[in-house]
Amino acid sequence: MATSNKPVRIAVDAMGGDNAPGAVVAGAVAAARMGGVQIMLVGDPAQVQAELARHDTEGLPIGAIPSEGIIIEGEAPALALRQKPRASILVATMLVKQGKADALVSMGSTGAAMASAAVVLGLSEGVDRPALGGPILGLAPHTFIIDLGTNVDCRPTQLLSFAVIGDVFARQFWGVEQPRVAMLSVGAEAGKGNRQVRETTELLLKSGLNFTGNVEGDDLVKGNAEVVVCDGYVGNIVMKLTEGLGLALSSHLRKTLSGKLSETDLDATAQDVHDLNNIVHTHGGGPIFGVNGISVVGHGAANARAVQRAIGTAKYSHDIDFIPKLNEEMAQVYARVQEESPSLQS
Amino acid sequence: MATSNKPVRIAVDAMGGDNAPGAVVAGAVAAARMGGVQIMLVGDPAQVQAELARHDTEGLPIGAIPSEGIIIEGEAPALALRQKPRASILVATMLVKQGKADALVSMGSTGAAMASAAVVLGLSEGVDRPALGGPILGLAPHTFIIDLGTNVDCRPTQLLSFAVIGDVFARQFWGVEQPRVAMLSVGAEAGKGNRQVRETTELLLKSGLNFTGNVEGDDLVKGNAEVVVCDGYVGNIVMKLTEGLGLALSSHLRKTLSGKLSETDLDATAQDVHDLNNIVHTHGGGPIFGVNGISVVGHGAANARAVQRAIGTAKYSHDIDFIPKLNEEMAQVYARVQEESPSLQS
Repeated sequence: MATSNKPVRIAVDAMGGDNAPGAVVAGAVAAARMGGVQIMLVGDPAQVQAELARHDTEGLPIGAIPSEGIIIEGEAPALALRQKPRASILVATMLVKQGKADALVSMGSTGAAMASAAVVLGLSEGVDRPALGGPILGLAPHTFIIDLGTNVDCRPTQLLSFAVIGDVFARQFWGVEQPRVAMLSVGAEAGKGNRQVRETTELLLKSGLNFTGNVEGDDLVKGNAEVVVCDGYVGNIVMKLTEGLGLALSSHLRKTLSGKLSETDLDATAQDVHDLNNIVHTHGGGPIFGVNGISVVGHGAANARAVQRAIGTAKYSHDIDFIPKLNEEMAQVYARVQEESPSLQS
Repeated sequence: MATSNKPVRIAVDAMGGDNAPGAVVAGAVAAARMGGVQIMLVGDPAQVQAELARHDTEGLPIGAIPSEGIIIEGEAPALALRQKPRASILVATMLVKQGKADALVSMGSTGAAMASAAVVLGLSEGVDRPALGGPILGLAPHTFIIDLGTNVDCRPTQLLSFAVIGDVFARQFWGVEQPRVAMLSVGAEAGKGNRQVRETTELLLKSGLNFTGNVEGDDLVKGNAEVVVCDGYVGNIVMKLTEGLGLALSSHLRKTLSGKLSETDLDATAQDVHDLNNIVHTHGGGPIFGVNGISVVGHGAANARAVQRAIGTAKYSHDIDFIPKLNEEMAQVYARVQEESPSLQS
């Protein structure tokens, strides 16, 4: 562990997300108060100062770094990065690249944060595009699903890299010694699935990972694998279907149980069903995987508490040396697979 | 409509499903009592007679046709069909092929029913393999999702055929005049998705169908399209995830609301959340699409009521001339698409 007494320097994109800069600054102040971090708020100077003035920051390790412009949800990330070279997300990412910050945190847009991380921090060896993954079903909080939408039409070697990311995540973040790694498919038996699943299965069998075979859609809520690997096309549909069902069932229950439960219990039940199926919203956020640096991206709707948690995740990722560990395991697994199939293009 | 006063002759696979022959015979007797059908129970003569003896069938249009053997869930369908040429599902399907029955109904195995339909009844023009589709989200009961798992690694022309099936289904079964046909993808904007989505989109735009673009995972519960087209790989994962979430949330609520709701309300709530997400189980079943004849397959766990409903679906499919209408529209759409892209391989 890279733990030391030195605070972890975290660049926070003060302008990212629906509730910026208010919620972001509030979350950053709360994180600074907890200790162990030094915060650089990157944003429009006047707006950031106005928000900082709402809090008692006397003596807290929190400062501001000026930027110009924001990249919002829906903008084409690559184009926006070129058009706004001083945008908050780019300035924050540059601080990490230049070694002035140990990690950065942004509440979006996700596309801009990922593009910025890929361009500025660079991709890890053997990775084509950054990936997003995480637990997305509250009923199976220790099942890490990857990819969630950045990568579609994945080659088997990409899916293999997702498996490694999940394996390192489950060991480092959850302390699972031998994470069970599974492929999402349409039947439990080996060989069931599409061509992508079958080809990836061959690589996983040679990977040295604890590959346990296929899981099906209903297994995702059962927690019978720590890591579930899938193409971003299906991962994104799984994530959004879960969120949509959570929202719809929450309001359905609010109607059908109205008058049968106390107002407090009704609210709690509706909230519970919502939150269990929308943990990407309610959690702080996760690291972008496959880039050479720590960039934690959270949900655009994040409140101050979620921002604070995202800063905690960034600090923890730095403390445990997540990126070097991931790169190291990635290299080992690729070497192992390549040894057994020399023709493999990584 | 092919309606006439002649009863619709329906072959019922008395041996199919987890609760056969008891539940199947009970459901068939109930259907016979409702009128409009003449039932042929296909199964082991002794077992079928024993079950029939439990009911008052005096004067009812219900009889028995002997068969030998059953193909159970998990058996490789193609092999089983060769090894058991007198199996109940094959005998029932042959009755339709020979014109002795107008339709058949089976509670599974689904694989055996589909293989039997493909081999005995034959595939519709332009179809490679039979398909399964239906509404699978109780919160969006008029959204027909296809394919649900038989067809993976689909070519764009297959996905086009699914769109036609859904279109005819929504018009004939739900009376929707211009069903909205959408592709399941990872972004609403045209062009968002994987290669399969993009290539299919080009065909759908030329199809003459009311193609409304992409829907995302969370749209599936919103009812904003009558027909959602997807590869069976993702469709199966969507169906099973929904079922799994329904089961898990149902038992979660049973725990968290215990003591806060009356036993009756608690049971009703748990059942409601289960049923809304497991309508494939609770509904009777649907026709196998893409074969030259009516074969309705239901869920293995079907009870008598579900069997009765499946028989109703088979009768209705016959009454509305579903198969000829589907074949006709399929030919029209293919002709339209081919006119605009002469190089297309159907």
